[in-house]
Amino acid sequence: MSQATRVTAGLVVIGDEILSGRTQDANIAYLAKWLNEEGVVLSEVRIVGDDRLAIIEAVNALRERCDYCFTTGGIGPTHDDITVDAIAGAFEVDVTYNEEALQMLGEYYGPQELTDARKRMARVPDGGGLVKNPMSGAPGVRKDNVFMLAGIPGIMRGMLEGLRGELAGAEPMLSASVTVLAPESEMAEGLAAIQDAHPEVSIGSYPFFRQGQIGAELVVRSTNAERIPPVLAAIRRAADAISAAWVDGES
Amino acid sequence: MSQATRVTAGLVVIGDEILSGRTQDANIAYLAKWLNEEGVVLSEVRIVGDDRLAIIEAVNALRERCDYCFTTGGIGPTHDDITVDAIAGAFEVDVTYNEEALQMLGEYYGPQELTDARKRMARVPDGGGLVKNPMSGAPGVRKDNVFMLAGIPGIMRGMLEGLRGELAGAEPMLSASVTVLAPESEMAEGLAAIQDAHPEVSIGSYPFFRQGQIGAELVVRSTNAERIPPVLAAIRRAADAISAAWVDGES
Repeated sequence: MSQATRVTAGLVVIGDEILSGRTQDANIAYLAKWLNEEGVVLSEVRIVGDDRLAIIEAVNALRERCDYCFTTGGIGPTHDDITVDAIAGAFEVDVTYNEEALQMLGEYYGPQELTDARKRMARVPDGGGLVKNPMSGAPGVRKDNVFMLAGIPGIMRGMLEGLRGELAGAEPMLSASVTVLAPESEMAEGLAAIQDAHPEVSIGSYPFFRQGQIGAELVVRSTNAERIPPVLAAIRRAADAISAAWVDGES
Repeated sequence: MSQATRVTAGLVVIGDEILSGRTQDANIAYLAKWLNEEGVVLSEVRIVGDDRLAIIEAVNALRERCDYCFTTGGIGPTHDDITVDAIAGAFEVDVTYNEEALQMLGEYYGPQELTDARKRMARVPDGGGLVKNPMSGAPGVRKDNVFMLAGIPGIMRGMLEGLRGELAGAEPMLSASVTVLAPESEMAEGLAAIQDAHPEVSIGSYPFFRQGQIGAELVVRSTNAERIPPVLAAIRRAADAISAAWVDGES
């Protein structure tokens, strides 16, 4: 795949709870796969705390260098939810109430229960729009090429469902793998030669020690399905050459 | 905790397999907790692919703004393991063989089996040292304030064990929590008032929808143990005020 046709996204994960280790992130891998299905490559992730300047810096870096920038976290009703304000700061615009979001929240909570705290969830950077949330009343927010999604995995996934087909993606990246039951150091020279002979695909080597076995999963990636099988075959031959067992993978 | 006494670390996670979503990261939360035990705050994480320029940019940014910079991944024997070379580039130094590492690898594999590919794992940025690896022959690498660790979780954890007490840490951050079984939007105004009244602690609100229940875990953090209980008590009173059930957490 040529660089020219790559459509890229960056992700800014916002939350002290990830940086403190309290919460295991569950959104990065999910978003990465979802983007891949949409023909978009996740090219960089930054994890920052609930800190206005850190969010502004990360979002400005990734929205400029990537075609899209996603954020997760910090769009709820509490005092530590500062994503919308920070991203308005990144764009140097004010924050305004979005009428459609106010209406959605009013329908969800009922007009009596639409407190000031809940109204916070209808605030968007000036000129921004909404990302639908099928799970609760509070929508995500879009401003230009920046999508602000919820941090709760179930809600983030729902918002992504609503965004299917909305991004201008390129061709999806395809992959297939062979698992070789040998130390990757024994395969290294053969793999380097195969990669040199097939510069049009990328070959990743992911070693593992599991259930007492040492091995490596060798993943071949290309946007062109026809380019993958010859490389897999070369890897199998390289494994045979060092008398290592191998098994074809699922991805 | 004043900013002046914070000791910070950044982490650069290196690997196409994380950005493609194939592999769920298992190192960030572990490293965050380990750092916390050493009195160091993880202040930013960047995830980049197996790309020399991306690694150089991320490492240079984090080694300059943080007291320590850790990397995971890309220190194995295969063609896609480029961390040591990239970090030598970040420091603008050459890569050299480390004699101690060559000896360790020779003892591990046996002199006959110390192939060129395996010798790659003894390469360090000029002036760099080693991080011991209790699990296999290949050590991690240290160059100034940058620690290059393995990406395989079991090996990374072993390397961290060997680094215990090696960092100059500040006071560990302490935390305690109350889980309130109510939508966080109902607690938001009370929490904001409590945070305003207790600027010396940080209060995080982490909402959840699980097993049919809506709630939020409210985490109070401080380096001073005495400052936490009064804030927990204020949160319990705020929950009582909206007739919400609550339960004390473990962390």
